[in-house]
Amino acid sequence: MTEDNKYHFTIEIGVRDYELDSEGIVNNAVYQHYLEHARHQFLCKVGYSFAQMEAEGLTPVVSRVEINYKSSLRSGDVAVCRLWIERKGIRFVFHQDIYNKATGALAVQAIVTSVVVKNGWPTRGEQLAEFFKDYLS
Amino acid sequence: MTEDNKYHFTIEIGVRDYELDSEGIVNNAVYQHYLEHARHQFLCKVGYSFAQMEAEGLTPVVSRVEINYKSSLRSGDVAVCRLWIERKGIRFVFHQDIYNKATGALAVQAIVTSVVVKNGWPTRGEQLAEFFKDYLS
Amino acid sequence: MTEDNKYHFTIEIGVRDYELDSEGIVNNAVYQHYLEHARHQFLCKVGYSFAQMEAEGLTPVVSRVEINYKSSLRSGDVAVCRLWIERKGIRFVFHQDIYNKATGALAVQAIVTSVVVKNGWPTRGEQLAEFFKDYLS
Amino acid sequence: MTEDNKYHFTIEIGVRDYELDSEGIVNNAVYQHYLEHARHQFLCKVGYSFAQMEAEGLTPVVSRVEINYKSSLRSGDVAVCRLWIERKGIRFVFHQDIYNKATGALAVQAIVTSVVVKNGWPTRGEQLAEFFKDYLS
Repeated sequence: MTEDNKYHFTIEIGVRDYELDSEGIVNNAVYQHYLEHARHQFLCKVGYSFAQMEAEGLTPVVSRVEINYKSSLRSGDVAVCRLWIERKGIRFVFHQDIYNKATGALAVQAIVTSVVVKNGWPTRGEQLAEFFKDYLS
Repeated sequence: MTEDNKYHFTIEIGVRDYELDSEGIVNNAVYQHYLEHARHQFLCKVGYSFAQMEAEGLTPVVSRVEINYKSSLRSGDVAVCRLWIERKGIRFVFHQDIYNKATGALAVQAIVTSVVVKNGWPTRGEQLAEFFKDYLS
Repeated sequence: MTEDNKYHFTIEIGVRDYELDSEGIVNNAVYQHYLEHARHQFLCKVGYSFAQMEAEGLTPVVSRVEINYKSSLRSGDVAVCRLWIERKGIRFVFHQDIYNKATGALAVQAIVTSVVVKNGWPTRGEQLAEFFKDYLS
Repeated sequence: MTEDNKYHFTIEIGVRDYELDSEGIVNNAVYQHYLEHARHQFLCKVGYSFAQMEAEGLTPVVSRVEINYKSSLRSGDVAVCRLWIERKGIRFVFHQDIYNKATGALAVQAIVTSVVVKNGWPTRGEQLAEFFKDYLS
């Protein structure tokens, strides 16, 4: 868990037993839930929220997800979800890594690209960028 | 699978592997998804839909669920979801049974009670009752 | 939130946005996940765990669920999940209530009945009862 | 929906209302369920199954997922899930596209890479390749 200082946000999510599949490991799709939850909590941390964006007619839309599965999480494990962001044109790119708290092993390495949509059209995302300004270089 | 004639609607739902839990059986909560899906498909069959109700400002709200788990479903099984309805005052009561298609065994026996809400208040559900009129004695 | 002293265990579960349905409220089936997670965490608290039971060839099987839905949870809400247990013959009965942390309102009132199964047969559950002995009068 | 002949397998999956999120569209993570279900059904079509592989001590493990989200699916939509496979060394690469049945629009474009694991170690996947031999050039 080196290079800690590259991350902008960290939350811990305890594995819940209903998230396991028949192999006794966290199902692949569940990590997308963890990743989404981490992004939404990061949004809350900067003083914004998904619900508030929706109320303002702004919808953050995920356009692309890349996930590399490195090791499995199991019953009793805690997922340490860390992320850092960058802005590329109108896109917000979330670099998200998930570690096994007990072992420090990397479980998942993901890159999630999103765009803010208004009335069905992509926007430049200026409002969201304002909330993220401390993290966008 | 006797007393077939008591049911108003039947759909088959194939078990998907991600619905299994670490014991290799369909997770308890997944049956509520099957039950909900069966009710929504029944609504479609009578010419209505959940989306249409929402568009009209009507929300069918589940107020109570009783589920008896009789036997487990596993990978490869097909859930035969059957239901019949009755009206009790403002409540619509769905009697829902799920069978294992291959064996005929009863997997789940459920009673789901719902009310139609408008602007936060329960209604008499006359509009929904109209769509169900062939089934309500 | 009177009668606090009747509960044996309490955990808080923050609502995650992916748990909402198209009405913007926590989907009915998700509460079964909260209820299951609360029971499994209670098991951990008494020094046991679902994974350990499985490793010993014991499977806690839910035979019946009753859920009364009282009010909805939404984005940003925290579910306060409380439970107390009683033993009725071979059955372990979990009385589980979920409150909205911010308002104190009761969201869900549930009774979950389970039995410990070994090699496909119900057992008297003596081993589990031993872990729960401080709570079973 | 051109280039139909590149696909090895197609199944249709009807959207279920509980799969929608608060925006009224299918939640991003749900597509991974559709993609997994399509792969598992393809496995059944060639005479094998996920459950059988597990019984033989073989575990197909997803090592990487890339998903491009092109357009949303909503209540009432049917997802047409199509795939073709190629083998790259020990990896099986599934090219999976999901179309909206009514409009023909591409909803999701995905590439899923997996490896067959035995006793915790990656294998060459010869047994799985044998089942897929008609599709691997």
